[in-house]
Parts: sequence; structure tokens; C-alpha cells
Amino acid sequence: MSQEFFERHQPLLEQAMAAAALRGYWSPYAESPSPRNYGETANDDGRAAFEALRGKPFPLSLPDADGTVGGEQSPYGFELGITYPHVPADKLVAASKRALEGWRRAGPRAWVGVSLEILARLNKRSFEIAYAVQHTTGQGFMMAFQAGGPHAQDRGFEAVTYAWQEMSRIPGVAVWEKPQGKNDPIRMEKQFTVVPRGVALVIGCSTFPTWNGYPGLFASLATGNTVIVKPHPGAILPLALTVKVAREVLQEAGFDPDVVTLAAHAAGDDTAQKLALDPAVKIIDFTGSSANGDWLENNARQALVYTEKAGVNQVIIDSAADLKGVARNLAFSLALYSGQMCTAPQNIYVPRDGIQTPEGRVSFDDVAAALGTALEKVSADAARAVELTGAIQNEGVVARIEKARALGLPVVADSKTLAHPQFENARIRTPLLLRTEAGNAAISQEWFGPIAFVVATDSTAHSIQLARDSVIQHGALSLSAYTTDDAVAEQVQDAAEVSGVSLSLNLTGAVFVNQTAAFSDFHGTGANPAANAALSDSAFVSNRFRVVQTRRHI
Amino acid sequence: MSQEFFERHQPLLEQAMAAAALRGYWSPYAESPSPRNYGETANDDGRAAFEALRGKPFPLSLPDADGTVGGEQSPYGFELGITYPHVPADKLVAASKRALEGWRRAGPRAWVGVSLEILARLNKRSFEIAYAVQHTTGQGFMMAFQAGGPHAQDRGFEAVTYAWQEMSRIPGVAVWEKPQGKNDPIRMEKQFTVVPRGVALVIGCSTFPTWNGYPGLFASLATGNTVIVKPHPGAILPLALTVKVAREVLQEAGFDPDVVTLAAHAAGDDTAQKLALDPAVKIIDFTGSSANGDWLENNARQALVYTEKAGVNQVIIDSAADLKGVARNLAFSLALYSGQMCTAPQNIYVPRDGIQTPEGRVSFDDVAAALGTALEKVSADAARAVELTGAIQNEGVVARIEKARALGLPVVADSKTLAHPQFENARIRTPLLLRTEAGNAAISQEWFGPIAFVVATDSTAHSIQLARDSVIQHGALSLSAYTTDDAVAEQVQDAAEVSGVSLSLNLTGAVFVNQTAAFSDFHGTGANPAANAALSDSAFVSNRFRVVQTRRHI
Repeated sequence: MSQEFFERHQPLLEQAMAAAALRGYWSPYAESPSPRNYGETANDDGRAAFEALRGKPFPLSLPDADGTVGGEQSPYGFELGITYPHVPADKLVAASKRALEGWRRAGPRAWVGVSLEILARLNKRSFEIAYAVQHTTGQGFMMAFQAGGPHAQDRGFEAVTYAWQEMSRIPGVAVWEKPQGKNDPIRMEKQFTVVPRGVALVIGCSTFPTWNGYPGLFASLATGNTVIVKPHPGAILPLALTVKVAREVLQEAGFDPDVVTLAAHAAGDDTAQKLALDPAVKIIDFTGSSANGDWLENNARQALVYTEKAGVNQVIIDSAADLKGVARNLAFSLALYSGQMCTAPQNIYVPRDGIQTPEGRVSFDDVAAALGTALEKVSADAARAVELTGAIQNEGVVARIEKARALGLPVVADSKTLAHPQFENARIRTPLLLRTEAGNAAISQEWFGPIAFVVATDSTAHSIQLARDSVIQHGALSLSAYTTDDAVAEQVQDAAEVSGVSLSLNLTGAVFVNQTAAFSDFHGTGANPAANAALSDSAFVSNRFRVVQTRRHI
Repeated sequence: MSQEFFERHQPLLEQAMAAAALRGYWSPYAESPSPRNYGETANDDGRAAFEALRGKPFPLSLPDADGTVGGEQSPYGFELGITYPHVPADKLVAASKRALEGWRRAGPRAWVGVSLEILARLNKRSFEIAYAVQHTTGQGFMMAFQAGGPHAQDRGFEAVTYAWQEMSRIPGVAVWEKPQGKNDPIRMEKQFTVVPRGVALVIGCSTFPTWNGYPGLFASLATGNTVIVKPHPGAILPLALTVKVAREVLQEAGFDPDVVTLAAHAAGDDTAQKLALDPAVKIIDFTGSSANGDWLENNARQALVYTEKAGVNQVIIDSAADLKGVARNLAFSLALYSGQMCTAPQNIYVPRDGIQTPEGRVSFDDVAAALGTALEKVSADAARAVELTGAIQNEGVVARIEKARALGLPVVADSKTLAHPQFENARIRTPLLLRTEAGNAAISQEWFGPIAFVVATDSTAHSIQLARDSVIQHGALSLSAYTTDDAVAEQVQDAAEVSGVSLSLNLTGAVFVNQTAAFSDFHGTGANPAANAALSDSAFVSNRFRVVQTRRHI
């Protein structure tokens, strides 16, 4: 069956390999929730499926469960009321080790076939997953659908593509024939077997449980490892649905479903630490805070640890052909999911003496004002704005807005509470934009959420230096720059390459610095403190498996 | 010039990529020291060049040298009397960082072109390097030539091949065109720049300075990093020659020669630690003891650390079609460079009730005796034997033979001192083969040098279990098994795959378990404690560089 799965998906896999090599636009999954893509009843069916899950034990059976956990709250203002089986960490690892025996022997085609079948079925459930993502992360519905559904699946498919690419270049058997002058050559047969590392752990986050979870999950699974998925206690449902689908596919293909398990747990307990330190856990993929990521890197020494942590994203405004376009694009980026994206801009550097535009010099104050005006426009129509901002995932983010206000910096645009037309208790805030001077230590940390700073610098050269040094010291997932001067663009690109951060130049249209596209944009570089890996490249997959050879004379 | 270098070597590079994919026999460099390959005067010229270096300061100029170090002793019984410039660790790193600026910008074709030109010139100096390797490591001349010259160069070329393969799959520029229904598509240009990690450090060993040093050196150099080569204080010369050649090529190509520097230092000082902990050092390749390798892994947290450490290599004898062939092959493996190879066998498991052969059951004692007889034969003619055994690299290895004798185990073959016909003070010992029972804790550690054990087990199943568990716990670089039973071969292969060690089956001819061939055999698996990487695969190179992208609308 797993061979059938492989053959079924092989044509798409081959397209994917070509796409990853060219890095042009390509996606295996439609990003538009249009009925033409997903069927007339898909949205209603998905919503109904989500509603049917509420207030009940989640239909998932795991071995050795000793109770249930739950307690997810929708940021839109209601309890999900779903409970999940709880399995002690050591029992989960034991089950994963048992499942590894058979999975290991199945080989790359089976691993990849099963992985792609899981993704195909997840795609069909994109609406159900979208509602699950919306009501755990707080994302607006469209983002929850796209980023939580097809774009997350794209990133999963991409990881499988790289995994297959690396594994398939290992020949199963080679004949080695070494000439011996006038004598007969020495002939040996060499068999090369791809073997997994062991048990893999995926630690999900509360804002992008599927998008950030799928690359590690599928990279490990497609290279023969078994996977324990540990969701954030605030966003269990999207990954529980994922695990459920994975287990169904595994079972159909004749494998132990415990190849993929769920480690749902209560907030604040030590499940993550216990799992991470288990000697059998050989791979960990983590998205979350720098404190937790650093802890894993320093303590889970038996495992390969791939982390995406905090960063301070940077914007440099040097000059603009269309200042309104700049402001509109940046305001959208700041408001999108209320800055709760790891790629959302935070520090916007503008020279103290202003910037050049076709209309002449524009003062620092006027640049700041343009950003403030653009932010006002974004939130002017609350009913439309809430679709963009989504809701605030947790109270900690709301508290951070207060903390930022308490810095006492001049306010360029204040954060407002918006009412949601459908969910009266939704936790919604517009971005807070503050003004400060270069050198303010407060901006060298991440202010996760709808909080940003317009920073007055001595010059564009100073802005570039600040951005570069901040990336090197504090990490970043995005750098955005606006300039009409090719020489400045080159300087910024050089700073990006030295500090190791992706650069977007002069985005004023329908592309935003927050967004990266699978098969084209690398997400993260692995070259600065914000992340030690990129999604996805060879380095992300090639150490998840090893090759064991057997040679004999023939 | 570096472009010229790339074009000059591109045809061979393309052959190398094809060879790495097929993993059949292929080598870019002739392994035979025949005059037909290297010229009529090559041997004499190489010997003369080596002799001319003795008793003098080595002709290498490094920045900020504050004195000289030296003191190498030939294991064949004389002082080399060569001194090398000493540069304090922080000054070396500073020079490497300065050199990185220009090297980084040169790009993959330049990095690869320069790397391959260095290798080509090293190949031409294979005889000089062979004498340098012989008189630092103690290897016999033929091994010093092959393993220290063309085979080391093969492994260097292989690392460059994998590096190029991974870098060349990153497109320089991509056009991303996303359809927008009836509207015009969004079009972006994306530039992808390969950037190095930074300063790399290669820590050489005293037994295979070039063979074990070149993979890391060339993997880092070919991916744009600058490299500090820190030789073992007992085997500086082979790497000093290498660094000298590298600097000449770099200078010719217009680069700062400090892209490659030498960190010669006195034994017992803290140069390695200082270099390894420098924040600018981002990659470390190490070959040596588990204590030092573990220290690096645990402390040099700012760097990617690739280690090859100690292991306990395993042999399983279940049954044999040709017991004499088995014994002859194993005796050769034990005697080759006096067991001072990381791949040399140590624990030979034989069932207590003997093994099956075409001549009937052969008792444990008779199997042991066959091995003893074969070892006697290997050393019967001292003048021939010393070419095989070479000399003992250092007094610590001689002391270890005494320590093994002091275990008080029955001696199957005793270690003898042999006289060398040419070097009267050469430190030469034949292998010590002891007999013991399974469960003896003494054999669960590495006895580096000419020391091995025939181990009585309950059965072949027991032998397999012991070998597998030892690999998992203590690591191994080789597993060898002898069986005429396909079912046993399968069980051993499964144990090899579970524990992650390369397996050689039924070697009775001209191939020995100690040997691996570049472009065909992976050296190490990276899957057991003896080494965290394999030579060479994608995982060995793909994280030494990162990709930084710049995107803009077009």
C-alpha cells in the first residue's frame, strides 16, 4: 500500500523537485478556498466538522493513556471544550520505539509515499483545519485557511521533496570494480541502506502550529524516523487533527500507527523537557521562545536540534519612489495577524533628516506620520480590519502592548481595541507604533505582537549598521529595505549577506515581508540567532538519516 | 584566475559527481607510486625535498608570528629538527577574519576552483608528502604514499564534489511569477547568495594528518569559509606542506593567503581550546580521542562540530569457507600500520563451541590458533613485515601493549619488537592477540595500537548481540563478519543497520576491513558514538554554508 502511495504521488514529487531547483512559483495545493478548488460544500463541511469536535473528547486513541488534558480557548472568546488523551512521556517514547522497528525497515519509498498521502488527505481537510487554526491561534479565517492549510502543506511537501532528493541519490546497490593491472579486477557488491536516526520530537507553537510544525514533522517522517508531536497546550487541535490523519494513513499502509503520536499535555508541566531529554529522542524540531530553544540546544545533547526562536526584524527606509505605497505595505505587514508572525517587522529605521522622494525631501516626522496614517486606514473599518488582524493569541501579548506603552515613548499610532462583528468577546488589538532614537536598548529585544518602533538614525549608513549588528546579535527572520539608490541597495544586500538574513527590497505592492513561499523563498537562513536552520534545504533533511553499507566480494 | 582554475578542473569535477552518484570505483589520482604515474625522478625528488626541510625553519611566513615551535620525532628513530612559525590563537583568528571578507565575496566557483587547484598541486607533491607522513606518523612508505597522498587527496576531492553539488543546486537568480486570476501576475526577481559560516578550524591527528584532515579542510574551504589548520604537535609537517601549497594557490588567484593558515603549537598547550572557543570559529573538524572530541562537542557551542573519535571495531566469525583466508586477511588487518588505524579490528567474536567449515567443525582453540599462525607468518620476515606494520607513532602506544599484557589473559600471539633494515632506532611492534571471554569489561574500550582479542561467545547470536550493543554504546568505524550462512549474514546486516556501522562480509582476499575507498565507501556512518559524521555525504557539507536571498519586484 505504501508503494501504491509512492507511485500515486510520484508525478507531483517530480514536479516538486524541479520546482525546488528553479525556485520559481510552484505549489501543489490551491491557496484559494474557492469552491472551485475544494468543492461547493467544503467550507460548510469543514465548519460543521470543527463544531462537531467542540465540547467532546477528541476521537483519537493512543496507547497507555492515563487520563485526558485540554482547556484550549479560542482567542475569539469561547472555550473549545475539547479533551485529548494524555500519555506519560516515557510511555510515548516506548510506543514510538516499538513502532520504529517496522517503520525503519520499510525504506525511503514507503516513508515518502506515506508522508505524501498524509499531506494529500490533510489538504482535503483544509477547511476543518482552518477553523481549528483560527480558534486556537486567533488568525483571521483567510490566513488560518492559507497559512494553516495549503501553505503549511506546501512546506511539508517541500521537506519531503528535499528528503527524497537526498535519499534517492544514495544508490541501493553499487558494483565496485577496481582494476589490478594484468590481473583480474577486484569486484565487490556494496549495498547502501538508508537508516533513520530514531525517535523524532516536534514541539509546536501557539501561533502557527501547522505551518511551523509540518516541516520538521514531515522531514523526520519521510526519512524513516517515528515522530512524537507535542503541541502547545494553547493550540492542540490543529496538530491533533494532523496526527489523526497520519495514523489513519499509517494503519491503512500496514504500519503501527504509533509511528506518529500526540503528546498533548497541560500548560506548565514538564512534558517537553522529559521528551527532549529521553535518550531515544534523536531529532527535535522546535518553534518558540529563545529561552526554550536555547535550553533545548544546551541540554538535549543526544539529539539534533532544529530551532526557530525569537528575532528582531528590521526595516530600513532610505528613499522611496512612492512613500504612500511604502506606508501602506508596511502598515499591512504590521497589522497582519497583529504582528504575531515571526517575520513581522519591528524596528523601522529612518534617517533623522528625512528621506528622498520624487516630491523632494520628506522629514522624519512626515515619514512617521505617513506610517501612522496608513495604520489608521488599515483599522478604520473594524469589520474588515479584524479579518486582517485576527485576534490576540493570549493575554501575554496584550500585556506586552501595555508594557510597550509604559516605555513612555512618543506614540505614532496607538493600539486600539476593535469589536468583532461575529465574536463579541474576541481579543482584538490594532498595532502600536512608537517613535524612538537609535541606541534605545528597549528595541534590541523582540516585542512579539502588534508593537513596532520608528527609529531615528544619523543616516542610512547608520541604519544599515544598526540593522546588520542587530541581526548578528539578536537574530532576525526578515529584513526589508526601501531605496531608490542602487548603491544603497547593494550596501543593504551586503549587510544582509554578512549578517545572514533574507532581504526584501522595495515592497510596495501585494507582497509583504512577512510572507515566504515554499519552493521559492527560504524561511530563515540558519545563519543568525533567530533560527539554526532554514525551511527547507538540504541541511534541514540530510542529517535526519544515515547510510549503512554492507560490502562483499562477488 | 580562480575562474580559470574552476574551468581547468570542471571536467574532472563532473566525473566526480557522476562517480559519487554511482559509488563504483573511481579516483582522480593514481594510487601507485609508479614512475609511469608520477615521473621517473618523482621519488628521488620527493625524498630530496623532504631531506632539505630537515633541521631548518619551515619556509612558511605567517602574520603576527611571535616565535617558533617544533620538535617532531620520526617514529623511525630520528629528530626532524624542523621549526614552524607560531602565531597566538587570537592573532590567527583575526587574520582569518580579515581574509574572510574577500574570500566570502568570491563565490562558489572561485572557492571550488581554488580548492581543486590546491589538490592538483598536492598530488604532484605526493612523494614529498609521503616522506613527511612516514616520518611523523610512522606509517610504512607505501601506506604513507597512498593514504597520505592520493587517497587523502581523493577524500579532499570528494568533499569538494559534495560541496559543489549542494551549492550548485542553489540557483543564482530565480524569477517568481505568481498568477493572479484575470489580473497581471506578480513578478519578482530573487537572488540567492551562498554565504560561508565564517572561520573554520581543522584539528589534525598524529596518525593520518592528511587523510583525516583533508575532508574537513576542503569541505570548509570549498564552501567559502577560511580555514585554520591546527596539526597535532607530533605530525605538523604534512599539514604544513599542505597549508604552504594552499597559500601559494590563494595568492596566485589574488586572494589573501590567510584564507588558510597553520596553527603549529607546542604539545600540551591550550591552542586547540582557545581556537575552538573563539566566537568567530563557526566550524570545527576534529579527529582524535573521545575525551577531546566530547569536550569540543560540549564546549564549542558556537560552532558546528564534526568529530571522529575512538571506537571499538568488531569482527564476528560464524563460519568460513576458507578459514586460512579468514585468518590471513584478519592478520593483515591487525598488522597493517600496527593497528593504529581507526578502522582496525579489535574484538573478534568466535563461538565457544567453534565454527563450521567445509572440513567440518573447527574448535574455538583452533580458530584462535589459525589467527595466531597467520600473525606469525605476517611478521616472519622482518624486512617485509616492517613495510606492513610501519612504526609505532608514540610511546603511549607501546605502553598500551604492556598494559594489555598486564591484563593477564592467555596470549594467542605475542607482540614482538622487529628490527628495521634501514632505521636502527625505529619503534616497531607486531600485534598482540589475547584470548578472553565475552563479558570481560576490558574489551569494551578501545585499545588503540597493535592489540586485539579473540572473544569466546555462547553462539553466533550472542556474538551479533555483543557486537551490536558495543557499537551502540562505545562506537565503531568497522564491523567485519564471516559466515557461509545467508540467514546469519542477514542478521548481521540488520544488527549493523540498527547500530549504525559499516559492514564488510567475508573479506578473505585483497580488500581489508581497515580500508575505505573515496567516492564509493562512506567512512564512518555518523550513526554511532565513534563519529558524528560520515566522509563524505551531503550532511557533511550542506550546513557549512547558508543561503541569503534578496527579492524585489520586476
